[in-house]
Amino acid sequence: MRRNLEDCTVGIAGLGLMGGAIARSLRNNCGVEQERLFACDKDSETLNAAKEAGLIAQGFEAEKAGEMLKSCDLVFLCLNPSTIIGFLEKWEGAFKTGCLITDIAGTKGSIAAAAEKFRKDVDFIPGHPMAGAEKGGFANSQLCNFNGKNYILTPLSRNKSENLQFLKDLIYKMGFGRITEVTPGEHDRKIAFTSQLCHVIASALIDCEEDTAITRFGGGSFEDLTRIAMLNAPMWTELFIENRGALLDRIEQFEKSLDALKSLISGAQAAELEKRLELVRDRRTVMSI
Amino acid sequence: MRRNLEDCTVGIAGLGLMGGAIARSLRNNCGVEQERLFACDKDSETLNAAKEAGLIAQGFEAEKAGEMLKSCDLVFLCLNPSTIIGFLEKWEGAFKTGCLITDIAGTKGSIAAAAEKFRKDVDFIPGHPMAGAEKGGFANSQLCNFNGKNYILTPLSRNKSENLQFLKDLIYKMGFGRITEVTPGEHDRKIAFTSQLCHVIASALIDCEEDTAITRFGGGSFEDLTRIAMLNAPMWTELFIENRGALLDRIEQFEKSLDALKSLISGAQAAELEKRLELVRDRRTVMSI
Repeated sequence: MRRNLEDCTVGIAGLGLMGGAIARSLRNNCGVEQERLFACDKDSETLNAAKEAGLIAQGFEAEKAGEMLKSCDLVFLCLNPSTIIGFLEKWEGAFKTGCLITDIAGTKGSIAAAAEKFRKDVDFIPGHPMAGAEKGGFANSQLCNFNGKNYILTPLSRNKSENLQFLKDLIYKMGFGRITEVTPGEHDRKIAFTSQLCHVIASALIDCEEDTAITRFGGGSFEDLTRIAMLNAPMWTELFIENRGALLDRIEQFEKSLDALKSLISGAQAAELEKRLELVRDRRTVMSI
Repeated sequence: MRRNLEDCTVGIAGLGLMGGAIARSLRNNCGVEQERLFACDKDSETLNAAKEAGLIAQGFEAEKAGEMLKSCDLVFLCLNPSTIIGFLEKWEGAFKTGCLITDIAGTKGSIAAAAEKFRKDVDFIPGHPMAGAEKGGFANSQLCNFNGKNYILTPLSRNKSENLQFLKDLIYKMGFGRITEVTPGEHDRKIAFTSQLCHVIASALIDCEEDTAITRFGGGSFEDLTRIAMLNAPMWTELFIENRGALLDRIEQFEKSLDALKSLISGAQAAELEKRLELVRDRRTVMSI
């Protein structure tokens, strides 16, 4: 049976930055009507704000998520990874038969494992929208722009192809520009580099400089490299530790390259250094195309 | 005698990205007329392009810089640091008595030393506009935006206060938002962090990843951290090596912070890691205000 978005009741578990941005996008870009959009969140003020903003028909307290889930044909789990695992355990019986579930967690190994063994009468396709903003929370969800951004899916062999196609169509409608399908392991190794390593580096850069007036000497590079250091500390702590195997490998690869450059600088090896920087420039230029 | 910009003949030595951007800004924001703006460059096509674009009245080949300098009341040296030193040695006799000279080099120690011992009948105020673009050269100079950016000056005790004031007024007219005056040593230590360390880190990030299709997994962080890896390799080689004392100190401070984070991640020390990331977030947030 083909799933039609206009017939779907949609539930969002967790109205933080991403949950809020998805709610806005479903309403503004995908034609989901307010009466068919629900959300649950631990914060009742957030739920009220979302209702008043014309996004959702009804908000459910975290303890009443089951009441929401029983009517939802499509569910977005917009929580931190460990909270998603706990949510699935607690509410496994509450999901509506035949519903399509997806999530937004920045690590996919443990989520995909939980999805794999989840109830057979529902379909859970793990995903990761590659979007964000410097400030977190529902109040900042308008700052989270999906246009042209990447979206990673790590489909399971048990996922139904029509559900996967439905989700991909929806993701493009939301504004994302490119969907990549990989295994959870491949996702976690790639993201360890593009996302987690970058957040560790940005954090280390701020960690090593106490002078907050240093921005008088900023020309854009420092600002660009450290903007993401304004991070959601509990979430990133969880992501770093959850994916620490892949992340530590990436940190060590980065340290080797940093050491190589440092050694060329320290030895004033101009010709070698220039050659290496040219390779870097050319590689990064290809990445921009 | 008070210097008036409308009476000044202005010369730009080096019409690269920054020389070109300064020429545009002098013409568009500061009211400098085309007939009073000259440039010299090693590339005759660039000089022709600048003339055809209505920026300069006349272009001088590098070997004929002296002909330009003899009529200039204000000179911008827009060359790499070592090229500036060479230019000053070669053309010391050619500068017009009473002229005001400034430069744009990203390291200030050696330039300030050269300025200190330069001809006593001219006034050289070393400077560093904190602006740039991913692509270099005159052809990209329109991409180099000065609006609201930082400008660092490292004035010498021998500089005349009226010349310093004149230059500061001009810098603000060009669109820069904040001028900071420090010693050359302080400049080089601060810039080693905000600029050079950031370029080394961005380069190391690209150096350690061969897969140019990695951008499918990018969500903005990786792109922001590595945009500056599309660097002018000869110029940055020179800047890194010239300022290597301060830069190596900064790399080592960064490595210590990176090691500390790595150790917390590796040990899965969630509480400690979260606390450290919160300090980072708060510090970076203060830097944004």
